[in-house]
Amino acid sequence: MKAEVVGVGTELLMGQIVNTNGAEIARMLAEIGVGVYYQSVVGDNRDRLAEALETALERADVVVACGGLGPTDDDLTRETLAEVTGRSLRRNEEWARHLEEIFERRRKQRRGLSSEEDYPFPRNNLRQAMVPEGAVLLPNSRGTAPGIYLEHEATIVVLLPGPPGEMRTLMREEVLPRLAQDLSARGEGGVLLSRVLRVIGLGESRVAELLEPILSGQTNPTIAPLAHLGEMHLRITAHAPDEETARRYTADTAAEIRSILGDAVYGEDDTTLEAVVGEVLAERGLTVAVAESCTGGLLGHRITNVPGSSRYFRGGIMAYSNELKSALLGIESELIVREGAVSEPVSRAMARGARESCGSDLSVGITGVAGPSGGTPEKPVGLTYVTVADDQGDECRTFQLPGDREEMKLRTTTVALEMLRRRLLSRASAGRAATTS
Amino acid sequence: MKAEVVGVGTELLMGQIVNTNGAEIARMLAEIGVGVYYQSVVGDNRDRLAEALETALERADVVVACGGLGPTDDDLTRETLAEVTGRSLRRNEEWARHLEEIFERRRKQRRGLSSEEDYPFPRNNLRQAMVPEGAVLLPNSRGTAPGIYLEHEATIVVLLPGPPGEMRTLMREEVLPRLAQDLSARGEGGVLLSRVLRVIGLGESRVAELLEPILSGQTNPTIAPLAHLGEMHLRITAHAPDEETARRYTADTAAEIRSILGDAVYGEDDTTLEAVVGEVLAERGLTVAVAESCTGGLLGHRITNVPGSSRYFRGGIMAYSNELKSALLGIESELIVREGAVSEPVSRAMARGARESCGSDLSVGITGVAGPSGGTPEKPVGLTYVTVADDQGDECRTFQLPGDREEMKLRTTTVALEMLRRRLLSRASAGRAATTS
Repeated sequence: MKAEVVGVGTELLMGQIVNTNGAEIARMLAEIGVGVYYQSVVGDNRDRLAEALETALERADVVVACGGLGPTDDDLTRETLAEVTGRSLRRNEEWARHLEEIFERRRKQRRGLSSEEDYPFPRNNLRQAMVPEGAVLLPNSRGTAPGIYLEHEATIVVLLPGPPGEMRTLMREEVLPRLAQDLSARGEGGVLLSRVLRVIGLGESRVAELLEPILSGQTNPTIAPLAHLGEMHLRITAHAPDEETARRYTADTAAEIRSILGDAVYGEDDTTLEAVVGEVLAERGLTVAVAESCTGGLLGHRITNVPGSSRYFRGGIMAYSNELKSALLGIESELIVREGAVSEPVSRAMARGARESCGSDLSVGITGVAGPSGGTPEKPVGLTYVTVADDQGDECRTFQLPGDREEMKLRTTTVALEMLRRRLLSRASAGRAATTS
Repeated sequence: MKAEVVGVGTELLMGQIVNTNGAEIARMLAEIGVGVYYQSVVGDNRDRLAEALETALERADVVVACGGLGPTDDDLTRETLAEVTGRSLRRNEEWARHLEEIFERRRKQRRGLSSEEDYPFPRNNLRQAMVPEGAVLLPNSRGTAPGIYLEHEATIVVLLPGPPGEMRTLMREEVLPRLAQDLSARGEGGVLLSRVLRVIGLGESRVAELLEPILSGQTNPTIAPLAHLGEMHLRITAHAPDEETARRYTADTAAEIRSILGDAVYGEDDTTLEAVVGEVLAERGLTVAVAESCTGGLLGHRITNVPGSSRYFRGGIMAYSNELKSALLGIESELIVREGAVSEPVSRAMARGARESCGSDLSVGITGVAGPSGGTPEKPVGLTYVTVADDQGDECRTFQLPGDREEMKLRTTTVALEMLRRRLLSRASAGRAATTS
């Protein structure tokens, strides 16, 4: 069972955008035991696209082509697949009506803002309702370009739109279930199962050292460590005839790793640090607030990326200017002048101020030098003070973080979330200790 | 002049890492006028790697293969290239000595940490000093795997190590200068130049319609439209014998597009919307503050991603809970109860409150339903009210935005920044009108 992923788009070919879709599709195919043996990228050029599809149809059992289903003239994938497989294109009337409705709605929403004539139905969009003979249209709930699913001779060909959100939804909701069913009807498959352990607070080489006894000679499951902006992700991948066996393989290895790394493993798979922290807060009925200077709102943004975060996130203050640090967080301007806005006392005062003005159980205060300018020999770019405060007091830690402005902001919020997590863990053990004593 | 980039590595093929190297190599080749016509990825498998290299040698004039030069048994690129081109491998004695020195140094550094016997010179590493007959070894200052540069018949083949830092340094310091020289000796090359116009406020099909007279039949420069979360990016790419001509081609096309799309074009190349808004604010000595509910700090984060934003960003309030909307923004709780937290009056009151409590010239107020839960028939997920306020009053607009939680947050901050930009544009014209009257 060999699969090929074909990325379509000149912007991919020329490197103007990175082919993240190719990687994501391969990972999803692996979940149902389909291994990708080839990946290729072609531009929006009919001849080379035809050549790429022909090659893929020849050497692969499953071909997933992503991109080139848009409404413009350089979107050629649908037409080229029809050509290469010798099929005519037919209009799917249901989707054509659906497209007209979408544009009707948009026209109505625009009314009053601009004249109606400015938003006619673009006839070009009707190309998106065309489907090669014998193919199934996969409805796209997030965009105008539907997917295509075609069994051509012994090969299954799937076309997907290029926007990552649309590709992902169609893969999950339409393609994977269909493929799994078709493959099991053919008696093929087997299962490739991955599981990711997310580690924080330990560097890449330290993790490699600690895990050496497990890493050396591991073949099934394999363990792939990947450093990721202040975190380490360990991907455990098992291959087995059935899901249960694959699951057991990965579970055994995960348990072994956890026993070595302890609570440096904060979560699994797509669970983010902010989700883990949020879960604990929600469980215990605790709330949190933030006071951010150099990170400018990123910590609040990350916390509120978690659905349901309104249960525990009160809000916070982006105290970017010194005046706001005083006005909204009650920090004496004298302290700021004496210690500097980037200092431990100001970080502590920010956290305490946020807790007070937002009325939360816990709080975080962040101040640092994000750069690229503004650094001094005493307070270089990357220097950050992060404080976590609660009813038991406040703890401030100093970091010297690497990277450019955006990376520094991201790493700062990661260490802040990790300090929150540690504080919640220690509150819990203190609580338990109190109970058992 | 056709180039192909071949990514080598099972982790790339299976999507465990994203092929950023492929994109970066393509962009670097474009700088010296070499267009990438194909990209492919193969795993660490001798047969399929040989097949991929053979295909590339056949159809491309320049082949750059990246990855698979490491010391382990699954690193096969060097040996497979030798096989495919019918060349024997010879040891480069200088590099072999260099490798031994590196390991001698490491052994010394490890002393005291662990017994010397644990770090013998890995004989396997000497494979990295092997070079196909007739090829040039490209010294790698950042790692143990050197690059390879080989003219085979009419094709130039380059092998590069996979770690991005090593790949990048070798491309810059060794490959691009050599390639540029070899191509100009052949009378080939020229310059491929790209320029991106960033458009906001117009949909993909609308842009395609407006630009149809320019888009149809355009071959040099080419224009590639790319939709990107509420924005459209138009990439203009020109091919010319020299840089000046290429620059003129793209400039002419950019001017034509700008004359049609007007100030829907907000910037070029890597200029972000937040940078454009920030530039205007700084120029005019104006300040801005934000009050964010559903976006939870993302707008502040985007604004502060711009270096120097402390000149114009005062800060703001993440008013996630209703209590904070009252406590920090002075919104009467009665208004929130009557109209709902997600409503036009609350959005307006948030903007006005932020302006007042932060003492800024302009301000933004955002409230909406980010989902996935919390929507009602009257106020569905995606509904957002964005207000921009200044000394001339406040303007609120209602949006129904698509996408999941994170996408909705991103789109909301994009329309907020666009409203800020429009407000700054109209303040400017009002100012000019006042001057000329």
